[in-house]
Amino acid sequence: MSDRTTVGVGMVGYAFMGRVHSQAWRSVGAFFDLPLSPRMAVLGGRSKERTAAAAAQLGWADVETDWRELVARDDVQIVDICTPGDSHAEIAIAALAAGKHVICEKPLANTVEEAVAMVAAARDSSARSMVAFNYRRVPAVALAQRFVAEGRLGEIRHVRAAYLQDWIVDPEFPLVWRLRREKAGAGALGDIGSHIVDAAEFITGQHVVGVSALTETFIKERPLAEESAGLAASGSSAMGTVTVDDAALFIGRMSGGAMASFEATRFATGRKNAMRIEINGSLGSLAFDFESMNELWFSAGGGGFERILVTEPDHPYVGAWWPPGHGLGYEHTFTHEIKDFLEAIATGADPSPSFADGLRVQRVLAAVEQSAADGSRYTIVEDR
Amino acid sequence: MSDRTTVGVGMVGYAFMGRVHSQAWRSVGAFFDLPLSPRMAVLGGRSKERTAAAAAQLGWADVETDWRELVARDDVQIVDICTPGDSHAEIAIAALAAGKHVICEKPLANTVEEAVAMVAAARDSSARSMVAFNYRRVPAVALAQRFVAEGRLGEIRHVRAAYLQDWIVDPEFPLVWRLRREKAGAGALGDIGSHIVDAAEFITGQHVVGVSALTETFIKERPLAEESAGLAASGSSAMGTVTVDDAALFIGRMSGGAMASFEATRFATGRKNAMRIEINGSLGSLAFDFESMNELWFSAGGGGFERILVTEPDHPYVGAWWPPGHGLGYEHTFTHEIKDFLEAIATGADPSPSFADGLRVQRVLAAVEQSAADGSRYTIVEDR
Amino acid sequence: MSDRTTVGVGMVGYAFMGRVHSQAWRSVGAFFDLPLSPRMAVLGGRSKERTAAAAAQLGWADVETDWRELVARDDVQIVDICTPGDSHAEIAIAALAAGKHVICEKPLANTVEEAVAMVAAARDSSARSMVAFNYRRVPAVALAQRFVAEGRLGEIRHVRAAYLQDWIVDPEFPLVWRLRREKAGAGALGDIGSHIVDAAEFITGQHVVGVSALTETFIKERPLAEESAGLAASGSSAMGTVTVDDAALFIGRMSGGAMASFEATRFATGRKNAMRIEINGSLGSLAFDFESMNELWFSAGGGGFERILVTEPDHPYVGAWWPPGHGLGYEHTFTHEIKDFLEAIATGADPSPSFADGLRVQRVLAAVEQSAADGSRYTIVEDR
Amino acid sequence: MSDRTTVGVGMVGYAFMGRVHSQAWRSVGAFFDLPLSPRMAVLGGRSKERTAAAAAQLGWADVETDWRELVARDDVQIVDICTPGDSHAEIAIAALAAGKHVICEKPLANTVEEAVAMVAAARDSSARSMVAFNYRRVPAVALAQRFVAEGRLGEIRHVRAAYLQDWIVDPEFPLVWRLRREKAGAGALGDIGSHIVDAAEFITGQHVVGVSALTETFIKERPLAEESAGLAASGSSAMGTVTVDDAALFIGRMSGGAMASFEATRFATGRKNAMRIEINGSLGSLAFDFESMNELWFSAGGGGFERILVTEPDHPYVGAWWPPGHGLGYEHTFTHEIKDFLEAIATGADPSPSFADGLRVQRVLAAVEQSAADGSRYTIVEDR
Repeated sequence: MSDRTTVGVGMVGYAFMGRVHSQAWRSVGAFFDLPLSPRMAVLGGRSKERTAAAAAQLGWADVETDWRELVARDDVQIVDICTPGDSHAEIAIAALAAGKHVICEKPLANTVEEAVAMVAAARDSSARSMVAFNYRRVPAVALAQRFVAEGRLGEIRHVRAAYLQDWIVDPEFPLVWRLRREKAGAGALGDIGSHIVDAAEFITGQHVVGVSALTETFIKERPLAEESAGLAASGSSAMGTVTVDDAALFIGRMSGGAMASFEATRFATGRKNAMRIEINGSLGSLAFDFESMNELWFSAGGGGFERILVTEPDHPYVGAWWPPGHGLGYEHTFTHEIKDFLEAIATGADPSPSFADGLRVQRVLAAVEQSAADGSRYTIVEDR
Repeated sequence: MSDRTTVGVGMVGYAFMGRVHSQAWRSVGAFFDLPLSPRMAVLGGRSKERTAAAAAQLGWADVETDWRELVARDDVQIVDICTPGDSHAEIAIAALAAGKHVICEKPLANTVEEAVAMVAAARDSSARSMVAFNYRRVPAVALAQRFVAEGRLGEIRHVRAAYLQDWIVDPEFPLVWRLRREKAGAGALGDIGSHIVDAAEFITGQHVVGVSALTETFIKERPLAEESAGLAASGSSAMGTVTVDDAALFIGRMSGGAMASFEATRFATGRKNAMRIEINGSLGSLAFDFESMNELWFSAGGGGFERILVTEPDHPYVGAWWPPGHGLGYEHTFTHEIKDFLEAIATGADPSPSFADGLRVQRVLAAVEQSAADGSRYTIVEDR
Repeated sequence: MSDRTTVGVGMVGYAFMGRVHSQAWRSVGAFFDLPLSPRMAVLGGRSKERTAAAAAQLGWADVETDWRELVARDDVQIVDICTPGDSHAEIAIAALAAGKHVICEKPLANTVEEAVAMVAAARDSSARSMVAFNYRRVPAVALAQRFVAEGRLGEIRHVRAAYLQDWIVDPEFPLVWRLRREKAGAGALGDIGSHIVDAAEFITGQHVVGVSALTETFIKERPLAEESAGLAASGSSAMGTVTVDDAALFIGRMSGGAMASFEATRFATGRKNAMRIEINGSLGSLAFDFESMNELWFSAGGGGFERILVTEPDHPYVGAWWPPGHGLGYEHTFTHEIKDFLEAIATGADPSPSFADGLRVQRVLAAVEQSAADGSRYTIVEDR
Repeated sequence: MSDRTTVGVGMVGYAFMGRVHSQAWRSVGAFFDLPLSPRMAVLGGRSKERTAAAAAQLGWADVETDWRELVARDDVQIVDICTPGDSHAEIAIAALAAGKHVICEKPLANTVEEAVAMVAAARDSSARSMVAFNYRRVPAVALAQRFVAEGRLGEIRHVRAAYLQDWIVDPEFPLVWRLRREKAGAGALGDIGSHIVDAAEFITGQHVVGVSALTETFIKERPLAEESAGLAASGSSAMGTVTVDDAALFIGRMSGGAMASFEATRFATGRKNAMRIEINGSLGSLAFDFESMNELWFSAGGGGFERILVTEPDHPYVGAWWPPGHGLGYEHTFTHEIKDFLEAIATGADPSPSFADGLRVQRVLAAVEQSAADGSRYTIVEDR
């Protein structure tokens, strides 16, 4: 192993996503036999002090306060973008232009235009680029994809996807950046709706070709978050407008003829991270709920649903970990993602999902917003 | 008990629905303290011989081969309509005109026009009329309605309803009457979609005000059923056209502001009778699946979901039956329905659901078909 | 059907068991093609008035206040014993001596001696006799038995059975007859422990050959029940001694080499009627919980557990009822029992379970009590 | 954080347990604010080459091939023992004598005598010592303990524990060290039975005071494992005797009056790592199954069971990780264990579970074997 090439990683952002990516970079080499050996070289953030503290805790060797400096460093061959969506395009395009491999958090961008530019940059670069739809790397989701690809479900008739959370049910929950369009691009639709669109396309191997949609913002005004309250006096009751959707509901058709429904909401009281997907085919069916992430439910030939505990050595990614029945957690999806990304870099293959996959999801989101604005009219998803 | 008034019942039809209604008429008096004592007077069917055999097995005292004779009999005060939808209006209107109470299987009719006429007949009659959406009488569904009415869910934000079956996945399954528009009115939409629309309205106390829809017929041609193959030679491969939907998918808005999704399909391989409904409110949530009909899942205040075994004496209808944990079955929903209908007759109250409730469901189905025909455009449900 | 022989039924007792047996006698003919047509001839009870009211409600044609008169009637060919265990032997033996077929509630008797005498009476009679372990007729339990008999589980290694209820957790719950040894014979052990012993033996086809046991009475004194409080002033605080076990826990070995554990308790807070059984074999495993009585969980070859919805036409008893996914309830187990009993009478076959099966369970219960009294010493179950 | 004292860790063994401990040492500092900063100093193993390869992959700075050298190193303050049970006592006692803190895999030792000596060594040392019953650190198990301690279950009446696996159902599975008494001490009893005894004692705060037991070895001879086949020709059919139990079944009483049952088996086909525990108290009940490790089921006051997704910030250990609904995996239990151990070292508190806790479990295992050898006689657990 000592003769593996070391690749330096520069990560921008150290909030939730940065923490989990760090754990993946830190752990991946201990479990997978990698073609490249990642080095946690540098962490990027705006505040020198806070970035340095994060780097110390998360295990990064150095820090930069300007992402441009980070991208330019000789000891960085991979740029990992963990910032809000409004900066994805700028950082990714610069990194690709500098010949750096890029892994970028989802959704790929805040607009289709940005995503188009990112795909163009990826095409023009010799480097690899990946969008981090980590749910593809849940072993149960990867196993679902395998079952469909093997034909065990037959012709796919129905996709039933929902991503249900409840963290902003309280009207006193503040106006954090994820609730502001200029930072997040969209609300539940972009943040979690994008995941189920990608998962549906990944598992079925079909694309969403058209949608009819409703969106809603249940709570229109919220207390300003500390982060945006600026100079407002402590305890002030300053309110701000929620500029993204709280929930999005859409139905549509897949390229292979399946009917599909999607729901993304942060108002499903009692559901914490219920990323759920059900597939019905002519020969069999699948059901998955991330709240029980180590389980895949499979029915063959109209029989009952088998609860497959996706912890067997021959299940995707699982052989690297623990014995049967010793489940994995959320963070492992990122470890698997990093492993696949490093392999794609080593082989020169297109990572899955690529920036082009991310753009396709972006086009679905755009069609959803278009349909919702246009009386739920069935809206074709652009595909160029 | 001996001084209760006896009411004679005439039932038309003795297939699936007739069998389960018979069990309800037979059993209801042994478990509920009724204001009226039903007598299973007469069974109506076209074939004298087969109707007589059915009457003997199911416990009806007499038979008629013309429903008009049945309706006219002096020993019949209640007419129970268990025929396909194409004859509902004619029988019900005649029975109401003759002053007979009517309980009619769902959906109320095959068209909005018929349903409107039935509601008018009900309004003009002194008799009671009820449409048999039996799922309202699942104790868990009735408990769900109680929880919402008590405000335990707060403001309702989401309704997520699906009715999933798989009995016609096989393309060799024949073209039975339920797959022909002239008999059944609609396919999955009318047969099972109507149930979830009614259940959603019942539980939430809100109406569906508009919908955006997709419908699909996956298998367009099927072998003619024996019942319709007529003189075709045995073993012939005569095919006929499926003239109803195999699946219907629609999203919409409820009168109280909730967003709702509905799916009715007979192509959900492995799902046998998964009539499922989830409700999310600002204070709590509910989930139900008829495949586990004695369970209601309830989450309060964002906590986990409690599996309520709906077998306690203070749960709706349950006190009449067995001790806690000794579950009920499908047929009991009909027994409860008959009990409620007899009470409505005795008190003169409007039964729930009334023909007017049935008409409202019919208008939703019509709006769904209209939207599906019109590019999924958001279509307002008529409400006059 | 009209030429079927009619058999008159006389039932003794009309409490919980009498009510559910009545529903079975009333319904069985409408669903199963029976060789004999039962007639609900006469109900036996001590109070003339209350027995007559029960007969009117439950549908019995006549009443008797002395069970000896009931047994002697010419219009009674079947005696159905729904009384507490202390009168089982006397009634059953008299009925068998009179040439009447007997179906007797479980456990067969309050002592091994009584059960031995009942078996002798059954052997000496030309009539059929059955002990009403109704859980054998849960379709899922019968399917479990079928799977084992077909060898789908291979060699049975483990049986894990528990029957959990919670209805006497409250120390204020009164001293009803089920808590008095002279009426009930035993507590949780006899009432519900007997069911899981019978189910384990039925499913596996093996006998319990030896046990090691613990029993416990958590609440030693309880308020006298109205039924036994006699002339005590209303609201009196008279207490009585609980003379049966509240819980019994035992482990043992089966005749085929399996290890087995059993637990019967009325102190499992939150468990209402959790009659649970798990079987592990060299090739597969099964799991069942009566609280979800329409489900059987099956694992083959070490794979995940399949949730079989036991509502398919080819599942035991199910074809007579409703379409797939339309579940049955508690009472149907009795309807199935009556059907099997009538068939045994018609064919002259030994009913399952027979009095001999009931005696064997009784011997297990006796061994449990013996072991518990003797320092949990492993105690061989008599088998003569 | 930079001023935290660094403590060097020396770990002996790098198989399954060594791999998961390594991940814990590697990760703990990134998630918990630790009083001491662990340094992965040295890995001990017999083969220089293989130990070096493991150290490179798992992230250990150096290697030793003699554990005595490892224990003696100045840069080692903590010794982590991940070897089979036959070497626990020797290593632990030597490490404690050298003033090194010790964390030792479970069960503490292969015999009570060894465990007694280890406890004595721990008492005589100024260093901290912990036995690694990691299931105490499953957040759901820790939450269960909290609920009991808060009195939410009332008086504990029942403990129902089972640890079910199936990895040696195949008779061709070889005779690995875990199946040989001289290495492993016991079979399922020691390996997994010890976990449920510890968990039951931890959650309830009660001790097992007496047991009645059965044990069994279903497959008496197995192919020699490569590791022990020595010079046997490849493909040889050399067989060896299994000298440990395949399954152990025991019932007993807890110090607070609860009745308890325990089952440990590697022959529960289809169960992969079903470490299950149910507790029934006078006020409430709990149920847990490690195969769904992020869930705890709780019933209060006889109501239904609530599925608590143990991923909320105020749940034990969870605040350090991810948002609600983003579950943890098996390895996190070790990370929590290391965190608690480091805190105990820093404060000088007795770790939980201590060597004394480990000895108590050992005494229960000894009583189980004694009872099984002695006709299942109820055997008091020594408690000195």
